[in-house]
Amino acid sequence: MKIDGIPTRTLRPHPREGVLDLIDQTRLPHALHWVRAATLGEAAHAIRAMQVRGAPLIGVTAAYGLAIGLLADASDAGLDHALVTLGATRPTAVNLHWALARMAARLAPLPPGERPAAAWVEAAAIEEEDVAQNRAIGEHGLALLRALKPRRKGPLQLMTHCNAGWLATADWGTALAPIYAAFDAGLPVHVWVSETRPRNQGLLTAWELMQHGVSHTLIADNAAGLLMGEGRVDAVLVGADRIAANGDVANKVGTYLKALASCDNGLPFYVAAPGSTLDFACPDGRAIPIEEREGDEFRLVRGLDHRGTPSALRQLPEEEAVGNPAFDVTPARLVTALITERGVGAASAAGLAALYPEADRCNKDLPPSSGAVRNAGGAQ
Amino acid sequence: MKIDGIPTRTLRPHPREGVLDLIDQTRLPHALHWVRAATLGEAAHAIRAMQVRGAPLIGVTAAYGLAIGLLADASDAGLDHALVTLGATRPTAVNLHWALARMAARLAPLPPGERPAAAWVEAAAIEEEDVAQNRAIGEHGLALLRALKPRRKGPLQLMTHCNAGWLATADWGTALAPIYAAFDAGLPVHVWVSETRPRNQGLLTAWELMQHGVSHTLIADNAAGLLMGEGRVDAVLVGADRIAANGDVANKVGTYLKALASCDNGLPFYVAAPGSTLDFACPDGRAIPIEEREGDEFRLVRGLDHRGTPSALRQLPEEEAVGNPAFDVTPARLVTALITERGVGAASAAGLAALYPEADRCNKDLPPSSGAVRNAGGAQ
Repeated sequence: MKIDGIPTRTLRPHPREGVLDLIDQTRLPHALHWVRAATLGEAAHAIRAMQVRGAPLIGVTAAYGLAIGLLADASDAGLDHALVTLGATRPTAVNLHWALARMAARLAPLPPGERPAAAWVEAAAIEEEDVAQNRAIGEHGLALLRALKPRRKGPLQLMTHCNAGWLATADWGTALAPIYAAFDAGLPVHVWVSETRPRNQGLLTAWELMQHGVSHTLIADNAAGLLMGEGRVDAVLVGADRIAANGDVANKVGTYLKALASCDNGLPFYVAAPGSTLDFACPDGRAIPIEEREGDEFRLVRGLDHRGTPSALRQLPEEEAVGNPAFDVTPARLVTALITERGVGAASAAGLAALYPEADRCNKDLPPSSGAVRNAGGAQ
Repeated sequence: MKIDGIPTRTLRPHPREGVLDLIDQTRLPHALHWVRAATLGEAAHAIRAMQVRGAPLIGVTAAYGLAIGLLADASDAGLDHALVTLGATRPTAVNLHWALARMAARLAPLPPGERPAAAWVEAAAIEEEDVAQNRAIGEHGLALLRALKPRRKGPLQLMTHCNAGWLATADWGTALAPIYAAFDAGLPVHVWVSETRPRNQGLLTAWELMQHGVSHTLIADNAAGLLMGEGRVDAVLVGADRIAANGDVANKVGTYLKALASCDNGLPFYVAAPGSTLDFACPDGRAIPIEEREGDEFRLVRGLDHRGTPSALRQLPEEEAVGNPAFDVTPARLVTALITERGVGAASAAGLAALYPEADRCNKDLPPSSGAVRNAGGAQ
């Protein structure tokens, strides 16, 4: 999408130098700052510290991180070390593990000397597939939005949660892809952006919508139900970090509450995510691990001080106990439809089987050679 | 409740000096600072600026504010001016208007010379009734909590929203009154306290629970549904700012989302509020005005800087559009029961009639002489 009018991706690989440049998203929306990952450790840190976030972008970054790691040590031990290091960074996003599994399947059979070059090629393929998938999600979602438009005079009123946009992917986003597709096609849209405490990824969504010129309004997460009840929302679009075999959706904490409010108000609730977000090894949402993050994410609040310098304040004493789960699970029954790169389908075992018939449910995984893309996912 | 082990109320009237001392709640939880209202304007400012908040405390403060105003001008014009000034401070909390209506009914018939003294007496009566009501709410709620206890090994797990505690009333609180009653009676409880963006009144709840010694954990508003889905909550207790004739409940924005999650997980959702919160003139929740507050409540975040000085940061540029509704409406169908000073009843026209049979539904108001107290209410 565009920054200052210039089409830009969220990461810039430099295969010759063996480094990856990334937008440090912890400094947005206040500063657009690129950081360089030149070692395996720096790539892992970028994911763990959420300098990059969003399931799809985590997957792409991990793939490049593995390529960087192999430049230092391409032996079997080096490959294993890189896979373990990167795999331990974030527990919930399934894309991370699928991207790494795809890289491992491609690289392990090769002699060590051929691995680094092949890794950069494979990582670039994952990146390009992410972009193509998200563009396809945008087109399929646009058809749904066009169908909703007759209900509303004026711009279509869409709500999203967290950031499942351009910044969560290499380009386009997942939940925001249909919104960008609508905007670019001249379908007027307005986006209600929920803040998404405690890390406020909604501010990232507002920032990228502003950069691209899409009308939007920020709200507290608490306000979602009121707006729906007042008839000020036409549909909700969110991403996903992992989708279980029965269609249950793990996504940024608070997603479930928006799904309940959508259901209670008869509004469509769409989950936009590529096939790589599917986890057939998880029978249902109860099997999805929920990451608990450190309490200071909640205790500290961030912004610019009166001099315009990024700063943090302590809103809560250290001795106050804090619960900080990063995700929740939305039951499939609350999901109107999944929007994937293959099209729109039901959030159910049957719906998933119709979209991904090649998935080997005995192995409970999409086979590495199936061509089904596996790098991208959803939000947070 | 207790501060540093000393029983304390949230306001200290000084009839001889004609002033009212109040805790400046905008400085909590970082500093316990008392402010003095010595003029009508200062009393109105304290309500409008949310130095005092919580529907019941707003009602008591408005009553004392009227008494302060009459010391300067006790004429009919002075009385009208004070009623209009105080009545314009906050649009949603019905207690404000009922406290003022009760004061007006008591004072208007008197000769101006007798009004100031009578006003202080009436305001003190409203304060004492608030305390007595809240204590009664606590006892009725305690019976409900005792009935839930067999389900849970270990402390009963309760969730609340916003601050409907001691700080929202003269003493005890509404939603927290049953929790304090349980704690004082030796029934073990743990409270999940939601932050309550954008003004973070959950931090006030955590502060007063800590002062009184009640176990609690703070969470982002977004985490409420996950905790319920994981079986970590036994019941939800909230206050109310206004209850319509059909039992619909207006309370701090986000309450509706917690009610939906409670319903979806088969958990009881209790609304604790005294009779003064009832508004028979409102047929249902759609008739309740929802206060929209300024966007900088959302754009600025507050806490202590590294020197321990209260400070604010701008988390969002001024040009970003913000929606900031302060309340939402929870449909009566999602409310398991109302806990009032008269006992526990259904959130319905029949339930309200059973608890408040003397209410004159033709006049759509509780008659001033009915004895039904009308100063206290709920949260926010």
